Amino acid sequence: MNNFTFCSPTKYVFGRDKESLTGQLTVEMGSKRVLIVYGKGSVVRSGLLDRVKQSLTTSQVEYFELGGINPNPTDDRVYEGIELCRANNIDGLIAVGGGSAIDTAKAIAGGVPYEGDFWDFFAGKAVMTDALPVGVVLTIPAAGSEGSGNSVITKLDGLHKISLRTESALRPKFAVMNPELTFTLPPYQTASGIADMMTHIYERYFTNTPEVEVTDRVSEGVLKAIITEAPRVMAEPENYEARANIMWCGTLAHNGICGTGRQEDWVSHFMEHELSAVYGVTHGAGLAVIVPAWLTFMVEHNPGKVAQFARRVWDVVETDDRKAALQGIEKLKQFYKSIGMPITLKELGIDNPDIDLLVKKLHENKGQTIGGYYRLTPTETTQIYTLAM
Amino acid sequence: MNNFTFCSPTKYVFGRDKESLTGQLTVEMGSKRVLIVYGKGSVVRSGLLDRVKQSLTTSQVEYFELGGINPNPTDDRVYEGIELCRANNIDGLIAVGGGSAIDTAKAIAGGVPYEGDFWDFFAGKAVMTDALPVGVVLTIPAAGSEGSGNSVITKLDGLHKISLRTESALRPKFAVMNPELTFTLPPYQTASGIADMMTHIYERYFTNTPEVEVTDRVSEGVLKAIITEAPRVMAEPENYEARANIMWCGTLAHNGICGTGRQEDWVSHFMEHELSAVYGVTHGAGLAVIVPAWLTFMVEHNPGKVAQFARRVWDVVETDDRKAALQGIEKLKQFYKSIGMPITLKELGIDNPDIDLLVKKLHENKGQTIGGYYRLTPTETTQIYTLAM
Repeated sequence: MNNFTFCSPTKYVFGRDKESLTGQLTVEMGSKRVLIVYGKGSVVRSGLLDRVKQSLTTSQVEYFELGGINPNPTDDRVYEGIELCRANNIDGLIAVGGGSAIDTAKAIAGGVPYEGDFWDFFAGKAVMTDALPVGVVLTIPAAGSEGSGNSVITKLDGLHKISLRTESALRPKFAVMNPELTFTLPPYQTASGIADMMTHIYERYFTNTPEVEVTDRVSEGVLKAIITEAPRVMAEPENYEARANIMWCGTLAHNGICGTGRQEDWVSHFMEHELSAVYGVTHGAGLAVIVPAWLTFMVEHNPGKVAQFARRVWDVVETDDRKAALQGIEKLKQFYKSIGMPITLKELGIDNPDIDLLVKKLHENKGQTIGGYYRLTPTETTQIYTLAM
Repeated sequence: MNNFTFCSPTKYVFGRDKESLTGQLTVEMGSKRVLIVYGKGSVVRSGLLDRVKQSLTTSQVEYFELGGINPNPTDDRVYEGIELCRANNIDGLIAVGGGSAIDTAKAIAGGVPYEGDFWDFFAGKAVMTDALPVGVVLTIPAAGSEGSGNSVITKLDGLHKISLRTESALRPKFAVMNPELTFTLPPYQTASGIADMMTHIYERYFTNTPEVEVTDRVSEGVLKAIITEAPRVMAEPENYEARANIMWCGTLAHNGICGTGRQEDWVSHFMEHELSAVYGVTHGAGLAVIVPAWLTFMVEHNPGKVAQFARRVWDVVETDDRKAALQGIEKLKQFYKSIGMPITLKELGIDNPDIDLLVKKLHENKGQTIGGYYRLTPTETTQIYTLAM
């Protein structure tokens, strides 16, 4: 087990109608004038945005708005938000929505007190230590951003989709989590969220760090819960209990508890980010395609942990590691199919992927050799993208 | 899944030599003059106390000392600590040790800013909302107090051992966790700690709240890790990896993550607290005796979750719930025996327990009917203590 520092200070307020506490929680986090960041249609149509505003008003919190944030959020809206905050002496952000709204709010929060270009943080030219406080009203369990210190933003110039990881600056102060707010999520988005949260665990689980039994067991436990609850939310979108379990799984998958004490390896995310940036696919669906290909490559190169995954998560009984790993991957693919996820680039709607472009951008953004579980040069990442076809 | 609020803001700094960061972490938590609270011999003999003092001095933190805290810590030392803090304008506490030092430090931290008697909080006459900040250098993985908002203190007058649970006031600001500091723990204390942390999970796991799949799976995962690592720490006390896993298990068992979304039931702890208070037994060893008796009682009254525990944690394959539950309890008992724990009051050194006294004190402290998984009156608690003989 590696040395680690773990601090997850977010206050999770979980349950029915908890969005009515947004104003009170905003005051608790020390904000009086906030920017509400949200996406499109549903948050407005459902009346949620109005309820959040009402709660803020009741608690005498003034608010401004930045709406219409797109999936795979882009830097232009961040610049816009930073200007809005500076012009209006904003002292906090409230994201209402899923990862796109939250990640935009976080990038704004870090950009406001910084004199340079906020993209410096994403480009690795500056380290973020200060940010405005961020609160979240979560509507999409997927990105896990409600409990993480991370933000993923795409730079329009060059379509670079980059994730920023902070130790603590961008951890939300609070996250309101009402499972009922997820009842109306369309099936494809629900399933994509499930694939996304599962991958947040894989990227921590597939590691060469030995002796991380407790972290492995917790990770496997959350995965098993997702596998049990996913078919239920797909079959019964308004099943509160199934939605509640999936929602909490999404947070545990990414607040860091599944990564304690070990090296992580975010290659699958990096490979998918290029798909999202170039083809605009839904992040989780892209991951459902990339991960099985990445695991299949590993069967020939580093099967050990894949076999453990097969045995402990998918109840495979095969004793040979390679065979066990392959059986586990097959079960994973069948699971993704069962919830309506694509498992090939073709099924994702990309008939003729420009793999050379994907590989070129990937290594431009992340270096010539990437990956911790197994080191990948352009030769290997080309093989993995090809396996995904 | 019940509504819940979960906030675990403690900064865990885990790994070799991390005690050298105590001074820096103390400054981060905003303290300049601290009271170091510690137990007896080993912390001094090992040189740990000196290293902590050195780290504080390097960071220009002044310190005062309250040493010699006993297991099952008592209110007299808390009063003494409160006076020391007030007399010296102390603005923070550093506990060096296990649950006894930490719980004493916490009780002092809550008592200093309170005008009344600190025992009011434990007696339920006042709600603690304010406390001095507490930092921890952990040497005994057991109580989980390094990550909890709880404190357990025994009132000498009447030997009332009472636990106080706060939402956030008593959560430590940081916890330094160096597994090497646990290498010299004697076998009995190591095993008692293991029994204690397992029970922190049981008290959350055995619940009638339905639909808590993710919380169940995480709980079962931590239990499985403990069961794997416990024989290793017993056989090889200086195995860093095994000690590290057990240490982190102890925190996860009690920082609240295993309780999210469900009713908890702390009856086994309450029943053991009377044993500790009356007979001065080691808390964890007392729990190793009480829990199997409590579970055995449940086989006849509410076997469902006990059967799940048997199947998922102990790999019992029996389909009948009552039979499965009994097989699981037998495996648990064998496990406790294998690590040197007693499983009867007799083995605990109490040949002729005064069960009437235990039952009387239990219900005086906790009410005539106690327990959530199954409601217990003096009739039933008498049966459980008797089953433990």
